[in-house]
Amino acid sequence: MAEVIPHWLKKQAELSPDKLAVEIDDSVCLTFSELYEQSQRIAKQISNFPLKRNERVAILSTNSLDMLMTIHALSYLDIIVVLLNTRLTSDELNYQLKDSEAKLLITREELIEDKNLIVPQIKTFKEIKKLPVNQDIILNESIDLADIYTIMYTSGTTGLPKAVGHTYGNHWWSAINSSLNLGLHEDDKWLSPLPMFHVGGFSVFIKSAIYGMPVYLLLKYTKEKLFNALYHKEITIASLVTLMLADFIKTSESHQAPNKLRSILLGGGSVPEVLLEQIKEKQIPLVQSYGMTETSSQIVTLSPRDNIRKLGSAGKPLMSAEVKIANSSHGIGEILVKGPMVINEYFNNPQASQKSFTKGWLKTGDLGYLDDEGFLYVVDRRSDLIISAGENIYPTEIENVLLNHDNVKEVAVVKQEDAKYGHVPIAYIVLNNPNDLPDFKKYLKGKLASYKQPKAFHYLTQLPRTASNKIKRFELEK
Amino acid sequence: MAEVIPHWLKKQAELSPDKLAVEIDDSVCLTFSELYEQSQRIAKQISNFPLKRNERVAILSTNSLDMLMTIHALSYLDIIVVLLNTRLTSDELNYQLKDSEAKLLITREELIEDKNLIVPQIKTFKEIKKLPVNQDIILNESIDLADIYTIMYTSGTTGLPKAVGHTYGNHWWSAINSSLNLGLHEDDKWLSPLPMFHVGGFSVFIKSAIYGMPVYLLLKYTKEKLFNALYHKEITIASLVTLMLADFIKTSESHQAPNKLRSILLGGGSVPEVLLEQIKEKQIPLVQSYGMTETSSQIVTLSPRDNIRKLGSAGKPLMSAEVKIANSSHGIGEILVKGPMVINEYFNNPQASQKSFTKGWLKTGDLGYLDDEGFLYVVDRRSDLIISAGENIYPTEIENVLLNHDNVKEVAVVKQEDAKYGHVPIAYIVLNNPNDLPDFKKYLKGKLASYKQPKAFHYLTQLPRTASNKIKRFELEK
Repeated sequence: MAEVIPHWLKKQAELSPDKLAVEIDDSVCLTFSELYEQSQRIAKQISNFPLKRNERVAILSTNSLDMLMTIHALSYLDIIVVLLNTRLTSDELNYQLKDSEAKLLITREELIEDKNLIVPQIKTFKEIKKLPVNQDIILNESIDLADIYTIMYTSGTTGLPKAVGHTYGNHWWSAINSSLNLGLHEDDKWLSPLPMFHVGGFSVFIKSAIYGMPVYLLLKYTKEKLFNALYHKEITIASLVTLMLADFIKTSESHQAPNKLRSILLGGGSVPEVLLEQIKEKQIPLVQSYGMTETSSQIVTLSPRDNIRKLGSAGKPLMSAEVKIANSSHGIGEILVKGPMVINEYFNNPQASQKSFTKGWLKTGDLGYLDDEGFLYVVDRRSDLIISAGENIYPTEIENVLLNHDNVKEVAVVKQEDAKYGHVPIAYIVLNNPNDLPDFKKYLKGKLASYKQPKAFHYLTQLPRTASNKIKRFELEK
Repeated sequence: MAEVIPHWLKKQAELSPDKLAVEIDDSVCLTFSELYEQSQRIAKQISNFPLKRNERVAILSTNSLDMLMTIHALSYLDIIVVLLNTRLTSDELNYQLKDSEAKLLITREELIEDKNLIVPQIKTFKEIKKLPVNQDIILNESIDLADIYTIMYTSGTTGLPKAVGHTYGNHWWSAINSSLNLGLHEDDKWLSPLPMFHVGGFSVFIKSAIYGMPVYLLLKYTKEKLFNALYHKEITIASLVTLMLADFIKTSESHQAPNKLRSILLGGGSVPEVLLEQIKEKQIPLVQSYGMTETSSQIVTLSPRDNIRKLGSAGKPLMSAEVKIANSSHGIGEILVKGPMVINEYFNNPQASQKSFTKGWLKTGDLGYLDDEGFLYVVDRRSDLIISAGENIYPTEIENVLLNHDNVKEVAVVKQEDAKYGHVPIAYIVLNNPNDLPDFKKYLKGKLASYKQPKAFHYLTQLPRTASNKIKRFELEK
């Protein structure tokens, strides 16, 4: 992928200077030339810090124009952007700041008020924008597709978050492959209510720069804003998670489907049968997909022309992508994926890389099968993965924290169905001293992001185990 | 560009097996799975010849389904396809067969009846299809973008044709960049009346495989067929040259523009002012472009949204492409181009490569300027290039043949405007013995393709020259 191309945002500012690039919550609107010029200015301000090529700068932010411009700005400086999840605790953030060796954290004041973060420098977006504009700095005008652009952390089955370093090429191929599947229309406008620190939300902005397409961004998701955007903002494509889709079905009950909307791209978790029925009935152009941080968003997508006939399937691997099923029993086995949108390795983590990659294929750990037409059905995400309102939760991470408590002997965290969030984690605990029941809710506060905290604690005298001493999670889930 | 992706036609046969891939002249229709299976069969038949990876097989054919299937077939075998222009003479063809070291020529009988071609083996499409289907051969299922796929010859200012070897990557990036400019619609259907042995006609079929889009192919261009296709075949995009566009304007005089047609992509030569006026009036969605064999078709294209405002311009360089003007005087200078759709070098021709490439840029030899918004205007193709009904004619090549005649002392071939062909070549000759006037028409027959033969011969006692002894072509053209 040693290909050098013109910088996508600079190029788009040349091709479509006056076209709308981003619209935020009914208020801010920026054209491509404005977005380009303002992000260039921020790059010149950030260049006051003594940063070297490929060093890391972390961003901790909920969706904002500042965040978007800073992400573009760092690309002109050859700096790798570490995108942090705002729902994480200080401990969790510090792990990622340390692991990525971030030299600078850029954030908003209110997001770090109650936190104690360890990083060489912290600046707010406001402070950055007050710095002198360094006119001498030479900004990148091209992109080397082999260079790493972003790092996002993903937890693994071991419980320790792994750094996913996406190259510019991973993002480019992801955007191109998505366009080959969904098409590209002159009037396209993509709605993203997803956080930009996740790859699903992030990828929409790369598409925007490459396609020359406006994005309608929600700073914070609410079902009212979603309804307003879909019905009044000429949205043609929307990226949603199941929770949002369910909200939309409910709030739009008495309405026809929005008439400009041509695809709702759905990622993150399965769709309950009852919802699928409503979607079919209402003829909502749902496009289910399958992907993960490592695949730079969707890698398997159900094409619009199959979305009724194959409802429930994740679709077929995109044009440049491949999928195979390994170690299958009755057709069901581990899903392996390959393609130029898939990272080649974890960032600075040869151990994790060796475990997850085999001859160019990524072992996803998820279970699935291919039907006789080649459509992928995801049977279960990594046996132990819990997807709660679009966020991935790894039981091992929660278990590790609970095991640090003096009175915990054994613990198993499993998923429980939840009408609102899809699934939530619950904990089964074996105590050392059953007579002294600790307040685990209090104990976990500050140690785990709130969305990861078990919604219930159950106590057992021992955990159910298989002959080979593995915990029978399936039994606990029942 | 060391990227390996699934084979585009195999993949498309998986993604859209039942979608129409190609429709030919009102008759033959093939789906992607049919095109894939039939081209696989031909590959297995061609595999009976002892061909090694990257060896060359030449195809001499006017547009046909056999030609299309054979082009795809050779890609499964890692064989490089040499595409020969059917209008060339035996001498011209033999030069290309020898230079490319073609091991096999595949053709139709009637195309070689009057020719004497020198190549190790010649087979007709018919003969190939009678060969045993070799079931043991393992066919390529992926494409390495760095590998060379096609060779097409282009004449240079030196007069000796140069082999342009396109990688799969050149074709891939060309197709992707075109889609980023023209968009991609589910109902797209692309009309190509252009010969497949030129890159303009060829590139439509690569787009077809990558986009999953049907092509409507004309075996032989006539204005009636063009009219029929545009009005009755639901064409959304058409690739035309100026001559065809002029025909269409004339035949459709009393009609509205076809309602599904969203772009007429125009390559090869400039458009007369009077035609531009009619296009404007009739609101024909004309998309002018600039490109050459070396750039795998268009590299600068006028986006549909600018085609009225900037009529006459070739547009802006595509998303991954760059253009600059070198050695400019008053803004006008030589056009240099760069991008992953541009070849890196000529095939087996380091001398020509060294002359035409400089630090990753291709020196086109064409003259042009960029306006203040960055739109390219091509002032003149390589000062001496003559474009006649979409065919490139290099005066030097004609001059070299004429200079071989005993009675020719000096010669200059220049272009003359022509109502039908755009331009035609005419010759100015200084004879050794003016009293003995040779029959040059007869002399050139068999030595030069008919479209290259001067339409007039003028005799002078000496050629007008500049102080530095260069021929004043401009003066002769007047």
